[in-house]
Amino acid sequence: MGIRSSRDVRRASRFEVLHQIYALGSASRSSLASASGLSTPTVATVVSELLDWGVIGEVCTEDSGGGRPRARLAVNPARGFVVGVDVSETYVQTDVFDLALQPRASDRQALDTGHNHPGDVIDRIERGVGAVLGTAGVPRADVVGIGVSVPGRIDRAGGVSVFAPNFAWRQVPFIELLSPRLPLPLYLDNPLKASTMAELWFGAGRDARDLAVVTLGTGVGAGFAVGGTLVRGTGNAAGEWGHSTVVIDGRPCRCGNRGCLEAYVGAPGIMRQLRERVPGSPLLRPDSQTATITALAEALAAGDPVAEAVLRQTARYLGVGIGTLVNMLDPAVVVLGGWVTALLGRWLVPAATALAARHTFAPAFHSVRFETSALTGNPISLGAGIFALEGFLAGLGVSTSRDPARHTAAIATTTPPAV
Amino acid sequence: MGIRSSRDVRRASRFEVLHQIYALGSASRSSLASASGLSTPTVATVVSELLDWGVIGEVCTEDSGGGRPRARLAVNPARGFVVGVDVSETYVQTDVFDLALQPRASDRQALDTGHNHPGDVIDRIERGVGAVLGTAGVPRADVVGIGVSVPGRIDRAGGVSVFAPNFAWRQVPFIELLSPRLPLPLYLDNPLKASTMAELWFGAGRDARDLAVVTLGTGVGAGFAVGGTLVRGTGNAAGEWGHSTVVIDGRPCRCGNRGCLEAYVGAPGIMRQLRERVPGSPLLRPDSQTATITALAEALAAGDPVAEAVLRQTARYLGVGIGTLVNMLDPAVVVLGGWVTALLGRWLVPAATALAARHTFAPAFHSVRFETSALTGNPISLGAGIFALEGFLAGLGVSTSRDPARHTAAIATTTPPAV
Ligand SMILES: [Zn+2]
Ligand SMILES: [Zn+2]
Repeated sequence: MGIRSSRDVRRASRFEVLHQIYALGSASRSSLASASGLSTPTVATVVSELLDWGVIGEVCTEDSGGGRPRARLAVNPARGFVVGVDVSETYVQTDVFDLALQPRASDRQALDTGHNHPGDVIDRIERGVGAVLGTAGVPRADVVGIGVSVPGRIDRAGGVSVFAPNFAWRQVPFIELLSPRLPLPLYLDNPLKASTMAELWFGAGRDARDLAVVTLGTGVGAGFAVGGTLVRGTGNAAGEWGHSTVVIDGRPCRCGNRGCLEAYVGAPGIMRQLRERVPGSPLLRPDSQTATITALAEALAAGDPVAEAVLRQTARYLGVGIGTLVNMLDPAVVVLGGWVTALLGRWLVPAATALAARHTFAPAFHSVRFETSALTGNPISLGAGIFALEGFLAGLGVSTSRDPARHTAAIATTTPPAV
Repeated sequence: MGIRSSRDVRRASRFEVLHQIYALGSASRSSLASASGLSTPTVATVVSELLDWGVIGEVCTEDSGGGRPRARLAVNPARGFVVGVDVSETYVQTDVFDLALQPRASDRQALDTGHNHPGDVIDRIERGVGAVLGTAGVPRADVVGIGVSVPGRIDRAGGVSVFAPNFAWRQVPFIELLSPRLPLPLYLDNPLKASTMAELWFGAGRDARDLAVVTLGTGVGAGFAVGGTLVRGTGNAAGEWGHSTVVIDGRPCRCGNRGCLEAYVGAPGIMRQLRERVPGSPLLRPDSQTATITALAEALAAGDPVAEAVLRQTARYLGVGIGTLVNMLDPAVVVLGGWVTALLGRWLVPAATALAARHTFAPAFHSVRFETSALTGNPISLGAGIFALEGFLAGLGVSTSRDPARHTAAIATTTPPAV
């Protein structure tokens, strides 16, 4: 510990330079040095490697002042494709992106609570990848990597889902199971990390270096960036904000503890509040979280007092959690996303952030900005695609040793699945 | 935002190289490159600057194998001195260190609740600085900077104590008030940041890059390091973990909110628990927090059941807070310090960390290590001294522009105070 290898440093520099090329659209070497904070010689080395590998190219742009055209650096979208997969509690979404991270095709397959065994999920991923490559006309050989996001705690190096309480998975060797079916470089992480990476590259991170990205869905969690870098924690477990205690000896949570924030503000927690308030409420669709939260949103739009009371109660707990997060990290921006935010955010975000003031040390609260995610498309599959890009960059020029976070199929399929 | 200047990068490299020389004791250029993660040319540039300025020198060491002596780099302790000041709720401690950060002299002056106006504190700092320089025989001209730690929210650039609830200070221009009395480069920050910096340089940070440093005293807070770097937050307000809500609508806290962790586990909170349990308890010394907590420690050592009940209750709330911290940041180590930890840690740390398991997402909990601070001396004055060292390094070679976090006296005293 305390010691980073020069290979890690080289990789981080590559990723940072490419990040800045995406952020700037196209860039000169000197603007990359100032934007990345790397030295001019380091930028020159990285740029020449990226040019050699065809990841970036030189494009001609004219000065705004009308002067002579100058060569600038831009990503070469045709160099290859990455796939990002979002495994959520209710669906598996697969997206294919070119190397400029522009989406080319998308697929979504339903996943219900009866079909969330690893094999069910892997079937859907395989079908999804086949579907998006077919739609986009991308040959499998042009895919440089596939990033998969699975909820819960992930061992990236081992490609293992250590603990996914919402699926009741423990120590599932996910990549080992997936790689015979998709013999390509595979990368595993979770939605908190993926959506934070997406915001960092294409959302709120474009003008802030200290971010918190809150996800409200069936599960609840947060991702953090400090100084422009994703916070992983020592075992890649940072961000389990949703399992922080908001009520001592409170409701049981799927993680095995009691009184977790998720048990109050996750979709099942909101359903429970509705059930406790009005046991036979017509808003309640016991077998569908999405239908219930949608009904709640419609009732809020119509001014229904029961819906308003449930919203206030949810906002109360969410305000406590947001206060803690702001107190601890003093981010410039808190971005709220996830499907519950998409449905209820219009009412929930203003109510929760107003209440958060009561739970925040005053000076930090006054400087924070709250936003709902402005990314178009799915930030989780985008972030998973960025992880695949990161792995691809790390592997360029490395032929001998094996990247512990990159997994290629140990067993090659004799007949590759049809695309 | 998102843009760091090359001057910031140069400064950060200098500070990181020097940090590694401290960590390694003495070092070769190549060991510095691998330990710091900086490129060999960057290390060479920084080392040659530090040699030119006399901050480091070359020393001869023999190979462990008995080979020929080799030149290694080490800090030059005689290059100058830094002073670190810890303004706590009950005392002002001043320490002078040589440039190798070895303590040379220390002074402590009592501060009681009737004497915590800025002027009272400044008088004690001035006397403390005079005392330690006198004892150590250090001429004032050899002091390269003074770092001062004051509890609460600090605007570093402005040298302002924005909000110090325990002193009832708001917007006190502390450095502006102090600089006529001590016309030297002055740096202001808070004890959470200072003690985290001290742990990062000389404590748990020597073998972990992701740390949380918890301080339990009159006030309660935490400092964080991610990837070996101190987390400041966007407005230097990160670490206000003590003002996270543990009981919704709970006890009022000095910050103005209700139910904050500090209101339960800070020294006044522990006293309140004792008072609520046994109103006339002989352990209670209403006018002294230190005497009460000391009496509680003695009662625990004697197996007193009231003391044990108060300890259990305190551990319960502290366990919630520690769980939140581990959930959010997944640190390798949580270091507990502060004067309440020094007195009660033997009982409180094992009880609270065991209870924290109930409030932590399981995988993160199993990988974290809990420690009580192993630093000798006062980590806050040491950390404040490190901030002065950091400011001194940043200013070397910069003669024209003004460092916003460095404050030199606008008004020179005609007769410098006697040393
Ligand atoms: Zn939980
Ligand atoms: Zn408080």
